[in-house]
Amino acid sequence: MLAYRDLTKEQLEEELLKQKEAYKEICAKNISLDMSRGKPGPDQLDLSMDMLDVFNSKSELKSENGFDCRNYGVMDGIPEAKKLMADIMGTKPENVIVYGNASLNIMYDTVSRSYTHGVNGSTPWCKLEKVKWLCPVPGYDRHFAVTEQFGIEMINVPLLEDGPDMDMVEELVSKDAAIKGIWCVPKYANPTGTSYSDETVKRMAALKPAAEDFRIYWDNAYGIHHLYDDEANQDQILDILSECEKAGNPDMVYEFASTSKVTFPGSGVAALATSKNNIEFIKKQMTIQTIGHDKINQLRHVRYFKDINGVKKHMMKHAEKLRPKFQAVITMLDKELKDADIATWTNPKGGYFISFDVMEGCAKKIVQMCKEAGMVLTGAGATYPYGKDPEDKNIRIAPSFPSPEELVEASKILIVCTKIATIEKMLDK
Amino acid sequence: MLAYRDLTKEQLEEELLKQKEAYKEICAKNISLDMSRGKPGPDQLDLSMDMLDVFNSKSELKSENGFDCRNYGVMDGIPEAKKLMADIMGTKPENVIVYGNASLNIMYDTVSRSYTHGVNGSTPWCKLEKVKWLCPVPGYDRHFAVTEQFGIEMINVPLLEDGPDMDMVEELVSKDAAIKGIWCVPKYANPTGTSYSDETVKRMAALKPAAEDFRIYWDNAYGIHHLYDDEANQDQILDILSECEKAGNPDMVYEFASTSKVTFPGSGVAALATSKNNIEFIKKQMTIQTIGHDKINQLRHVRYFKDINGVKKHMMKHAEKLRPKFQAVITMLDKELKDADIATWTNPKGGYFISFDVMEGCAKKIVQMCKEAGMVLTGAGATYPYGKDPEDKNIRIAPSFPSPEELVEASKILIVCTKIATIEKMLDK
Repeated sequence: MLAYRDLTKEQLEEELLKQKEAYKEICAKNISLDMSRGKPGPDQLDLSMDMLDVFNSKSELKSENGFDCRNYGVMDGIPEAKKLMADIMGTKPENVIVYGNASLNIMYDTVSRSYTHGVNGSTPWCKLEKVKWLCPVPGYDRHFAVTEQFGIEMINVPLLEDGPDMDMVEELVSKDAAIKGIWCVPKYANPTGTSYSDETVKRMAALKPAAEDFRIYWDNAYGIHHLYDDEANQDQILDILSECEKAGNPDMVYEFASTSKVTFPGSGVAALATSKNNIEFIKKQMTIQTIGHDKINQLRHVRYFKDINGVKKHMMKHAEKLRPKFQAVITMLDKELKDADIATWTNPKGGYFISFDVMEGCAKKIVQMCKEAGMVLTGAGATYPYGKDPEDKNIRIAPSFPSPEELVEASKILIVCTKIATIEKMLDK
Repeated sequence: MLAYRDLTKEQLEEELLKQKEAYKEICAKNISLDMSRGKPGPDQLDLSMDMLDVFNSKSELKSENGFDCRNYGVMDGIPEAKKLMADIMGTKPENVIVYGNASLNIMYDTVSRSYTHGVNGSTPWCKLEKVKWLCPVPGYDRHFAVTEQFGIEMINVPLLEDGPDMDMVEELVSKDAAIKGIWCVPKYANPTGTSYSDETVKRMAALKPAAEDFRIYWDNAYGIHHLYDDEANQDQILDILSECEKAGNPDMVYEFASTSKVTFPGSGVAALATSKNNIEFIKKQMTIQTIGHDKINQLRHVRYFKDINGVKKHMMKHAEKLRPKFQAVITMLDKELKDADIATWTNPKGGYFISFDVMEGCAKKIVQMCKEAGMVLTGAGATYPYGKDPEDKNIRIAPSFPSPEELVEASKILIVCTKIATIEKMLDK
């Protein structure tokens, strides 16, 4: 089959009729599918059910240093949970604060604290005329929502194949003291699956920001979320904390991670990793906000996994469930869209998303058509600050929740809608 | 024995020598006791161990409306958890948001949100010149720490036998639009054990604040924490939400509660109860901060207790453990200090504290002496904003953690130190 651009007007019209017919048939099926969020499938949740056997009424709930985890106290996490979360992030336990159930909550609270109380003694952001933020795009909608909530002006930075456009980041950060942060998903990024190259990490760590309170928000959400078992097919990134230290910027980064997509989303353990200085400042505020997080759940996680090797083994069970799902989508896209050459998509080695780029000006229409056919996708534009994709071309596909069979159906809908929207655009309809 | 005030100078000197001898003997024992915080004792924690048998790897983790509690979602809590927390607070499920593990965290976040984003559309407090707060005293140190953290000016209001001095509250609140809130522990207050009378609750609900964004922070921390089984010996308070509604102030109150002192502190469930308007505004911010709290733990609590009757029965087991502890302290105080008439103390029907008032100017010294003898009390002054007890006379006793035997020892230390400090004050030494 020819690429759409090589078709005549008549051929395009013919193809459009054919696809519209297919779309009508799909709509008649009353399908109901959801590929909007990075939710683990029920089969993945089943993988962690044994964790509920770890404790019973006879259990000893003491941490390794003898603390009774059932009672108040230990604000920053029990030692063994710090160790496990440090290993997940590739850093040291003394750099870790263990929090509650969600890294999003830590990120929100970190921005909120900077807004209300500044960063390690700097002016609280609420007292500043203007605060700006760098947002590699496409990126994670919930990140952008946090900075938008605090009235922070977000600046798009292109996410290239090896990470954000560092020339642009360096330039902006060094010149504008209003820029206080950058959102990064350094490994298997949401939604592209991009992992930062060593050079990108090193350049990030060596930034010379004009603002002393500039921080890198390093959301290592998919640090251990590989899709393949063999190391050749796994991305690895440098440890940002030690790179920042080496570069003389020890306090410049906050790293976030959680077990939300390891055990149970909502019932996992989340953590922050950062420098000693930062931890000291954060704890001063944190001690006003809470007496401590759920230590029984921290202990439950550690007893279940024992150590990082237990976690890694567990992640391979997730990979086995997820791989066929990614493959179902990508196989369909390869088969049905490659020749037409009207879209590009990523084929990541980990994470939870496939990023799907269509012809400029078509994304919104495609998502809308899919919705009308019974398939919910993440809103077009969601991968950009303010929900505004300047080219209206990026669509995020979240293949984790539906079954592989459903994903074949879902891909068909997406493909038909993409074809129709593209031809109509080409024909200027 | 005579009251100290009726002793001659010589008799006082003699008594002082005697007590100093006793103090020396106590110090020689190398005691180590902690009555500083309202921590449940290990025997109380044992009461909830069966809750860990509720779930195992074979459990069905679906909420009553069919939601898989293992996955993301349900930001404001599963329906059955809303119902249980509503029953604990004496309100309706539709007024409830279920949060994570701690009501302190909800309170902090509520103040923080008002500071960053205002209250239902009002000017964010960070943009105001001055924000003030009413603090019934003595009160809960962690409350005062939250408002202090946000630079809010705290105004002491005497806590009388039936609640805060409402004449003063009404007067201040109606005249000063900078006053945005009041901290209340309406039942078995920390530290006095006071419960608000019906009249106090009604007057509170009928306040006519000058500030439209004034809110009552109703920390119903001890709503079901009775020390006695018979209802005649249990305090009851009116439901503030319906009183506010009746008074035409439906949005004026946030009520907080948790199961921290019901099951496991740190691993419990906390909740907010408030009006529909307030919930709507709060959820708009909350959806940026979190995807949801620990629903498995919510479900665990509901499956364990079944309903409010299960909770009430459970609380009576706590009462059985706590009663002898309160009695151990109060018996000792009655026996050793009543005649001397140099201190007063509360004998509450619930809650976690005994409030102990000594001669003006003596509290700090007594706490310091106790510490040197091996017994840690809450810092003197902690029950007042900024840690400043203007009369230096209130000491908070937290009898829940030590055993009754240890409490007899602890009381002896407190009594000796109180006697010494008082006589030295009387003799102007």
